Formats: sequence, structure tokens, C-alpha cells
Amino acid sequence: MAKDMKKKYPELKRRMKEAQAIGAASGLAGWDQETMMPPKAAGSRAEQLAALAGVYHEKTTEPAIGRLLRKLTKDGKGLGSGERACVREWMRDYRRATKLPVDLVRELAKVTSLAQDAWIKARRASDFGSFAPWLKRVVALKRREAKCLGYKGHPYDALLDAYEPEMTVEMLDPIIEGLREGLVPIVAALLGARKKPDSRVLTRRYPEALQEELCREVMGIMGVDREASRLDRSAHPFCCGMAPTDVRITTRFNERWLPQALYGVMHESGHALYEQGLPMKQHGTPLAEAVSLGVHESQSRLWENMIGRSLPFVKFIHPRLKKRFPAQLAGVGPRELFRALGRVEATPIRVESDEVTYNLHIVLRYDLEKALLVGDIGVRDLPGLWNDRMKELLGITPKDDAHGVLQDTHWAQGLIGYFPTYLLGNLNAAQLWHRIRRDVPAVDSKIAKGSLGPILKWLRERVHRHGRRFPPAELIRRATGRPLSPGYFIEYLKGKYGEIYDISSWGPARG
Amino acid sequence: MAKDMKKKYPELKRRMKEAQAIGAASGLAGWDQETMMPPKAAGSRAEQLAALAGVYHEKTTEPAIGRLLRKLTKDGKGLGSGERACVREWMRDYRRATKLPVDLVRELAKVTSLAQDAWIKARRASDFGSFAPWLKRVVALKRREAKCLGYKGHPYDALLDAYEPEMTVEMLDPIIEGLREGLVPIVAALLGARKKPDSRVLTRRYPEALQEELCREVMGIMGVDREASRLDRSAHPFCCGMAPTDVRITTRFNERWLPQALYGVMHESGHALYEQGLPMKQHGTPLAEAVSLGVHESQSRLWENMIGRSLPFVKFIHPRLKKRFPAQLAGVGPRELFRALGRVEATPIRVESDEVTYNLHIVLRYDLEKALLVGDIGVRDLPGLWNDRMKELLGITPKDDAHGVLQDTHWAQGLIGYFPTYLLGNLNAAQLWHRIRRDVPAVDSKIAKGSLGPILKWLRERVHRHGRRFPPAELIRRATGRPLSPGYFIEYLKGKYGEIYDISSWGPARG
Repeated sequence: MAKDMKKKYPELKRRMKEAQAIGAASGLAGWDQETMMPPKAAGSRAEQLAALAGVYHEKTTEPAIGRLLRKLTKDGKGLGSGERACVREWMRDYRRATKLPVDLVRELAKVTSLAQDAWIKARRASDFGSFAPWLKRVVALKRREAKCLGYKGHPYDALLDAYEPEMTVEMLDPIIEGLREGLVPIVAALLGARKKPDSRVLTRRYPEALQEELCREVMGIMGVDREASRLDRSAHPFCCGMAPTDVRITTRFNERWLPQALYGVMHESGHALYEQGLPMKQHGTPLAEAVSLGVHESQSRLWENMIGRSLPFVKFIHPRLKKRFPAQLAGVGPRELFRALGRVEATPIRVESDEVTYNLHIVLRYDLEKALLVGDIGVRDLPGLWNDRMKELLGITPKDDAHGVLQDTHWAQGLIGYFPTYLLGNLNAAQLWHRIRRDVPAVDSKIAKGSLGPILKWLRERVHRHGRRFPPAELIRRATGRPLSPGYFIEYLKGKYGEIYDISSWGPARG
Repeated sequence: MAKDMKKKYPELKRRMKEAQAIGAASGLAGWDQETMMPPKAAGSRAEQLAALAGVYHEKTTEPAIGRLLRKLTKDGKGLGSGERACVREWMRDYRRATKLPVDLVRELAKVTSLAQDAWIKARRASDFGSFAPWLKRVVALKRREAKCLGYKGHPYDALLDAYEPEMTVEMLDPIIEGLREGLVPIVAALLGARKKPDSRVLTRRYPEALQEELCREVMGIMGVDREASRLDRSAHPFCCGMAPTDVRITTRFNERWLPQALYGVMHESGHALYEQGLPMKQHGTPLAEAVSLGVHESQSRLWENMIGRSLPFVKFIHPRLKKRFPAQLAGVGPRELFRALGRVEATPIRVESDEVTYNLHIVLRYDLEKALLVGDIGVRDLPGLWNDRMKELLGITPKDDAHGVLQDTHWAQGLIGYFPTYLLGNLNAAQLWHRIRRDVPAVDSKIAKGSLGPILKWLRERVHRHGRRFPPAELIRRATGRPLSPGYFIEYLKGKYGEIYDISSWGPARG
């Protein structure tokens, strides 16, 4: 019997590694589509991606997998702790994948594909009405999905769990409420400040080739392994990790907006460092997979915002910028550059917003998604509610639905429950950063010298190397010694923006 | 019953298209490996390729496919001629794939993988002895493969058939003998000529960036669809067609050898035009697949040699070269350039040889492969026989085995029966070219003006659009009106090299 069990784990692992390799091939096809593919190849690529997705689904839902998982879950004797974690995570994935009936999966694929087309056209014409019937169908299907997946508390939990394992509305509501309460006076103070940083210097002309050279230098300074990565261009920046030894990021350049590529690359490099830090020895198992989107996003935000937009890093990068852009930066010192990069402004567009107001964009979406899912509001109510809430949270009104409720592709793609992970990324990052500043001696002076190795080492040790060994909330608790709390992020903002805006008192939190 | 049959074909087609899409994903992974992949990703890529190959094999050998094929072969009523051709070709593939026992397939994969490692080391050290045991194992496995696949005449037929469907030793022997007889006096005359073309002009320094620009211009002139293709760099140039809308070629640049990239790109573009000319409407079926390696190679050789290295094309390209390389080409007119490009020399290395002597390299390999397979010679006899035959055919002796029997990777990879397709490519090309010159009016003056569209149109009509509708020999017969004969190639060489070397009489054919 023990002998029999000994064969079961390797058999399961072999099958799951094969499926993972198919998934990686699919990742490559996706990467290629955004970076290299000739334009006319879109149709054949869609067929390839569909075939790979089908095979991946087949391979991960085979009854034999279920049998192996059930046996190894019941009797895990002889398995090490890592192997037990793999069985647990594979079981998690297997349950999610097998709970959805095939007709629902097909219907979701079809409807979201058509909904995306409808969304593109609707956004172009700022015509919510033409998108509404599609969104209605998506929401209905996501409700059915939540039902099939099952949940204890709120149906939203079932969807959230896909991106942030074990996260629930019950846990998230107080976190988000705490964040909102903390943010409101900060946002009010910054938007109402009489003296604001001047960011015009960032809009001078910065030639693309020099920007690219700088970006590659920064990747090296961050510790991205050149022999295990690529940097390419794409319309929408992303990071794609096929293996810790094959991690590819993309960026886009804007010659009239210096932060675009530089901080885009730091952001994606943060993701890349996580992927490269997963243990190659465990490649193909959950121990070498990122644990959640919220943790992934914490890595990108930490490198982009906490490090990249800090005064010490700006001091470090300043001479490297000056060397390449002497005329553009004539008379601009590190402190002015730091301030320029820290200008906070209310904008209707999430992806253009700064790290302070960004979170209110997510709060808005989170509230609407929850209400939509349980039927407290209907799809037709969305444009009005969106604009009301935007006014309330940021004091602005989008000029049309294209700049409001239609701005993001997520809902058309069926990604409901995804937005909160962006916000969790910010909170995780601030809490990790708080702990790093305690654990790594003289971190600011290290950053100012471009010595980022000790920070990366800390992240490797406390976050990257664990893969999916612990659920994300536990990973953060182990790494920082505390459960997730929005306080760290609020304190981080007060410190940084107090300096930029010369504010020492933030007024009382508003209810 | 008829109704039932009506469902069977779409079902078969759906399954085969899915398998084809997996094959295309595998093609992409292979392309990426040679062009884009970070160096450390080799291990994970090997796993992905193995997983894709496994899935492809599963999908194409499922018993359900066999059942559908048998039924549709027996009762093809209601199928159109294209559908019948698809069933025939799918059946052909299915039989080849299912005749090999799984243990043989695995053993071949393993041994050839290790044999390639051994070959790389053996070639580096010019040590045939260390490679010999591996080659012995490969040959033994290929003998077993031939037995499993079955053959009527020579065991070599079973292997040849993988690359050149329906070709046999019985058909090939007289063709190759005729070619050899025709070539020997030509080679003797050219190698013995007192006045040889001077090719030193081609070794001046041609900056890579300008060469690349030229190559891209030439691709456009040839009619390669820019929106459905890519040109990248790789160590070994190749063409990879994932779909008619997604065809990628590679090249390598040598700043001290102008023909390298230019004619490399014309060669690969010839392949690309074939892939792009396959009917997109039939994508995923044999009607949109290249029929054989020998026909594929005819397309590359026709564009590279018959067109690219012709005097009219050199006249056309000359001002474009002059514009980019005025100093390097100072005082060099089109005719001198044409002559420089047409220098014939005996070299021990196949891939460095010219279009005349090239074929004798293949004759040598063909004879050895056949003898090896039936056991007329042993692996240990190869180095000696290689050098003897090289002396006999080209009058030279390789300085060591690295420049002789160890030069090519094919045998290590188990590719026995592959070499003759290179030679068939030359013969097919010459025969097609002979016919094109009759069918397309004033072809030389068209070429001299860079008007290559009529040639491409002819090839599209007579070759590309048919895919695998006809077996390769029939395709060539239909396209040219004659069965394949080496005479066209011999006549082509006499005409072209007679002009370059100023020879009007070639002496008698030697037995």
C-alpha cells in the first residue's frame, strides 16, 4: 500500500507537469500575439489558443487526476510538506475546473468573446446602451458560475477566489472600508493643495532609443536576469512567465511622457523578479507558481512606487537621466524630479491615475461588482451610479461613458472579482515595504547607491521562493508578522506625499 | 446512412484541425527557440516541445480517427474531390503514425537526442569513433522503423516516403544516375577551367544594417506578404509556416560575404511564398499543407538560383546594391557581379557548396545511406568510404572527419532518407523553370525590371494552391507536362555556366 502510494505522487506530478507545459506553450502563443505576430495571423492564432486551452482543460480534469488527488489527500503519508502543499493546490485547481459544466465554460467563452467586440465598439462610440445587453449576459453567466463553484458567504467570494485564493467579501469589506476612510482626507488635502508639484518637465521630448537603453539598465540594476528574460514592445504592457528561466516583459514608449516606459518597466520588472524567484527545481508544480494576483501586484507596485518613485531612487537615477537627457533636464535636480513624479491629480481614467487616487477607482468598481452580482443594482443603473460615485470619491465627472463606466475591458472579458487584486497589491506592497525598512539596514542609502540586491534577497526569501506553499493571506502574515491591514499603505502615503506637498497634518478621517 | 456519413467528415475535420493547431503551436515554440528565447530557457522549452509532441501524437492516433477514416475511405459518397484527397492524406498520416510502436517512438526520441549531443562533441573534436556507437544505434532503430512502416522494394523506401511521399529507390536510382552522368563532365570542365570568375568583390565589407534593408526590399519584390510574415535572425536559417497568414523566415548576416544573407533570404522567401500560397480557406487540412520536402525545396532553389543568381536579376538588383554599397562595388558592373556569384568550386562542406557541385554531395550521402540501411556497409566503414567517394566525385579529400562524414546533423537526428529531397528540389526547380520560361512571355526582361509577379502567379496556380491534393510526382507532372527528369537541370547548368565560364562544348558524358 505504501509502495502503491509512492507511485501515485510521481504519476500525478508527471501529468500535472505535462499540463503545465501545455499552459506555458499557450502563454508563449499569447506573448507572441502581443509582440511578434504578423497582423494577418490573428485568426489562426485564435484557433491555436483555443486548441491549447481545450487540451489544458482535458489534461487537468481527467478523472484519473481526480482519483489520484482523492487518494493522496486521504492518505498523504510519506509525502513531504512541499508535496502535500502541491496536492492541496492541485486539488484546489481540480475542483474549480471540474465544478463548471462544459456548456457553461463554452457559453462563457463565446459570450465574453462577443462581448469584447461589443465593448470595443461601445467604447469607441461612448454608447453604453449597445454594450448593456452583453454585460447583462456576462453577469448572468458569472452568477451561474459563482453558484456552480459554491461559496459560504457572498457569491462574489467564489469569483474573487479565482484571483485571490481564500479571500472573501467578509475579509475584504473592512480592509477596503479602512482604506477608504484613510484615503479620503489625504486625497482631499492633495487635490486641494494650493501649491502643487510642477510635472511639465516630464513632458519634454525624450527620444525613445535613449529611454529604452535606460530601461534596460534599470532592469539590470533591479536584478532581472538578462539570460532568462526579454524586454519587447506591446500596446498594453505585461509580464509573461513561462518558467523562472523564461520571463518576458513588455513596455510602450511615450516620447512626451518620461514616466511611461521607465516606471512601466520597473512595474513589469517587479512582476518578472517574482517569476524568476520561483524555485526552478519545483518548476511545473504549484511550488513554482505565483500565489495570487494580489501578491503578484504587490511585487510590481513595490518596485515601481515604493522604490522607483522614492527620493533615494530618484537621486540614484538622476545622473543616469542627465547623461542621456542633458537638455531636457537642465536645471532640474533630484528633488524637483521627485516632486514632479509625485503630482497627484483626479483623473477619470484608472490606468492614468497616480498611486493615491488609484485605489478609489478600485473601491468604486468593487462596490458596483458586488451589488451587480447579487442583483441590488442592474446593468442599466451602472452609468449613473458610476458617475455619482466618481463625483463623491474624486470630485470629478467623466465627460462621457467612454471615460467612465466603459473604460475597462475587464467586465467584457468576464473578469468580475479581479479589480480588488490591484488594490490588494498596493496594500501588500506597503506592508511588505514597512517590514523591509525594518529588516534591511540603511535601505534608503542603499537605494541611493543603486544597491537593490538586499531588497531583492528579502523578497526572494519571504515571498518568491514559497510559490503557492501558503495561501496569500498567510504568506503576507508570515512575511510581515501581521495580518493584512490598510494602515501601512496610509502611513506610507502620508510620509511620502507629506514631503512632496509639504503637509504635516492631514486632518481627521472622514466617515 | 448518407446522413450519418455527412456528420463523419466534419467530425474528422474538426479533430484534425485541432491537432494541426497543436502542431502549429509546436512550430511557434520551435521558431521562438531559434530566434527569441532567453538562453536559460532551453530546459523548460524542451519540456514544452515534448508535451506538445505527445499531445499531437495522441490526437492524431486516437482510435476514433481510425474508425472515421476507415468508414470514409470505404464509403466516400457525397464527398467532393478535395474532401476525398483530405481523407486519403489523413489516412496516409494515420497509418504512418500508428504503425510505429510506442516503445520505438520513445527509443528513437531518446537515442537521437543523445546522439545529437554526441555528434556535437564528436564534430568539435573530429572524433568519429565517439559518434560511431550512437550512429549504430540510430541505424538499427531506423531499420526497425522501416520494417514497421513496411515497403515493397527497398527498406529505404519506407524512410524516403516520410519526406517525399510515394518516392522509391526504384524511381530515384535512375534519376540520380542520370544526374550524376550529366554532372560529371560539367563539374570537370568548370573545376578544370583555366579562367575562373573572380569572386573577391563579394568579400568586401558590407554593413549588416544595409544588408538587412536590402533583404527586406527583396522580400517585397518577390511578393512575400509583409502582413503575414516576419524576418528574424538565427544561427541556422529556416522558414516556419504556422498558417498561410503566419510564415516566418530567418537569416544570418556575414559582413564579409555578401551572398550569405541576400541569397539566404531569397531561398527562405521561396519557401515562404509556397507557405503563403497554400489556400487559407483549407487551413488545417492537407489541402493547405506542403506536399513534400522535394517540392518545398524546389521553391526555395528556384527563387534563389534560377531567378536570384540569373543575369537578369543581377541586372535588376545591381543599382539597388550600388546605392547601398557604392565604394564596395566601385567599377563592378552587373555582368561581373553575375560572374562573381557563379564561381564553382569543390568544397568538402555541403552547405557551402555551389548549385553545381552541391548535388554530388547528395549523391554521396544517398549511396551511403542505402548501403548502410541494408547492411552492405557498416558504420565503421563510413569515414573511409566518405573520403574515397569525395575524391572520386569532386577530386578533394576533407582535411578531417569534422569536414567530412561528421559535417551534417541529419543522421544524429535520425533523418535518414532526407538528403535526396535537397537534390529533388534542384531537379524539380529546373523542370518548373523550364516550363515557366515557355509559359511566361519575356520572362528575362520581366525579371530585369523586377516584375516577378507573373512568375509567382504561375507557381501559385500550378504548385502552391494544390497543397497535398496530388502526390508530389504527379504535381510536378501536371505542372510541367512531363515526369521528373534530370535533363532539365543539366541543360539549365550548361546554359548558365556556359555563359559564366565561356564554355560552349562540355565533352561527352562519362559513365
